[in-house]
Amino acid sequence: MTQAAGATYLDRLAARSAATGTVLCLGLDPVPTALPTGFAPDIGGIERFVELVLEAALPFAAAVKPNLSFYEAFGPAGLAALERIRARMPADVPVIADGKRGDIDTTSARQSVAYFDALGFDAVTINPYLGQEALLTYMERPDRFAYVLCRTSNPGGSDLQFLDVRNGQHSEKLYERVARLVAQDWNASGNCALVVGATFPAEIARVRALTGEMPLLVPGIGAQGGTADDVRRIFSGVLGQVLPSSSREILGAGPDPAALRSAAEQCAATFAGLVG
Amino acid sequence: MTQAAGATYLDRLAARSAATGTVLCLGLDPVPTALPTGFAPDIGGIERFVELVLEAALPFAAAVKPNLSFYEAFGPAGLAALERIRARMPADVPVIADGKRGDIDTTSARQSVAYFDALGFDAVTINPYLGQEALLTYMERPDRFAYVLCRTSNPGGSDLQFLDVRNGQHSEKLYERVARLVAQDWNASGNCALVVGATFPAEIARVRALTGEMPLLVPGIGAQGGTADDVRRIFSGVLGQVLPSSSREILGAGPDPAALRSAAEQCAATFAGLVG
Repeated sequence: MTQAAGATYLDRLAARSAATGTVLCLGLDPVPTALPTGFAPDIGGIERFVELVLEAALPFAAAVKPNLSFYEAFGPAGLAALERIRARMPADVPVIADGKRGDIDTTSARQSVAYFDALGFDAVTINPYLGQEALLTYMERPDRFAYVLCRTSNPGGSDLQFLDVRNGQHSEKLYERVARLVAQDWNASGNCALVVGATFPAEIARVRALTGEMPLLVPGIGAQGGTADDVRRIFSGVLGQVLPSSSREILGAGPDPAALRSAAEQCAATFAGLVG
Repeated sequence: MTQAAGATYLDRLAARSAATGTVLCLGLDPVPTALPTGFAPDIGGIERFVELVLEAALPFAAAVKPNLSFYEAFGPAGLAALERIRARMPADVPVIADGKRGDIDTTSARQSVAYFDALGFDAVTINPYLGQEALLTYMERPDRFAYVLCRTSNPGGSDLQFLDVRNGQHSEKLYERVARLVAQDWNASGNCALVVGATFPAEIARVRALTGEMPLLVPGIGAQGGTADDVRRIFSGVLGQVLPSSSREILGAGPDPAALRSAAEQCAATFAGLVG
């Protein structure tokens, strides 16, 4: 929809990071009952508040990541609002559709149309449980990108992701196998990477060790308990793009534009040293 | 939206199975380029064709399962069409939103609103990679239901689902662990069950052995290569609800209403012996 012709997603992300001086990804996950006073807890209130957040915080964001569920909760009207929000964003801001999708091949083909074409997103998040097959349709688009869930930010993710999986005579955790699969096998076309939650700093370091310079999307900064310090410590001085994402910490500073701007600016500054 | 007050999803499904004499689940996954002549490859053509399919085939279906991606590919207009399709279905037909969702707790809470309230579905499909946490918000609704992906119907699903996972001194496949987790731990409120593809009959039998009478949703009959014979053989004489799902095999018989009706009737008759 709004991408510079020929540039890859990672090129566009790097250019935007350089221009803004940060790697902060602004999560747009608005809970209707948590909107500030004066904003109705409906899709109208959400759209108005998100526009206010973008106006104040976008100058401090390398990328934006709306979670689709927060819009889909309002049915077609919610998706229409998200479409307008996305269409109003400047062309140089990479926008990631956080939907955690994953389906069989024929269905995935319709999903890439939904998120890349109908809604015009630059990247998506993908759940690996259905295998590489779920990813292929997204990877056929050289100007777009897919982040595969590896170690998610939630405590419950441990149920499966920390299971011991056989690896020859040894074993490894399921999230480690996913990291290796994506880095060694699934990423043949070079346009996918991994999601590892900021709430699991030891696992971020482990995934970094397993995958070298593979870019990482790191959600869960702030309200979920992951600290910016952890992320900064782990990534300082290493190669490879990292994209730490924070939503509630910034959205919660509204509705005062100066407060929103200040929250985003502070968060962005935390990650200034990570710009490649 | 249209559920009998107080009845559980499984009660409603059993009543509908008894009334129709089958356990067939009609998948509604319309590929625009595969629509019959006379139907435009857009959301208008899809809505018109789906209505035709429902009119002809619904008398032979115990449940209906649209895959959300085939509608979301058209953006807000696609979701609005799905909302109309769902609203026009009779109150006694359980409708399953096949979206394979799964997210952290605060996001899942918005998802159950999206699928149970905004769109009025009776049940959903859930990806287990984010753990039981992804399921809890759905299970808080005693009149609704969630099918957790266990062994999916696609070849690529083997990438993770067939990994060997440590179980004490022994090992088991990841899909077996998911089956045990759901049956033994995750299903405390009694309103979730499992998805096992018809394309993996040995694994259906294995899951049946591990989970006793837990209901199963069995997609992939027909075009994906799973045979009705396999499903019938595996489930004959055993307890527990089973819901075999077929989409392309029935949709592909259109647009002649008599041909659609005949395809659905034949498919439904195949499973007549499985009605509890």
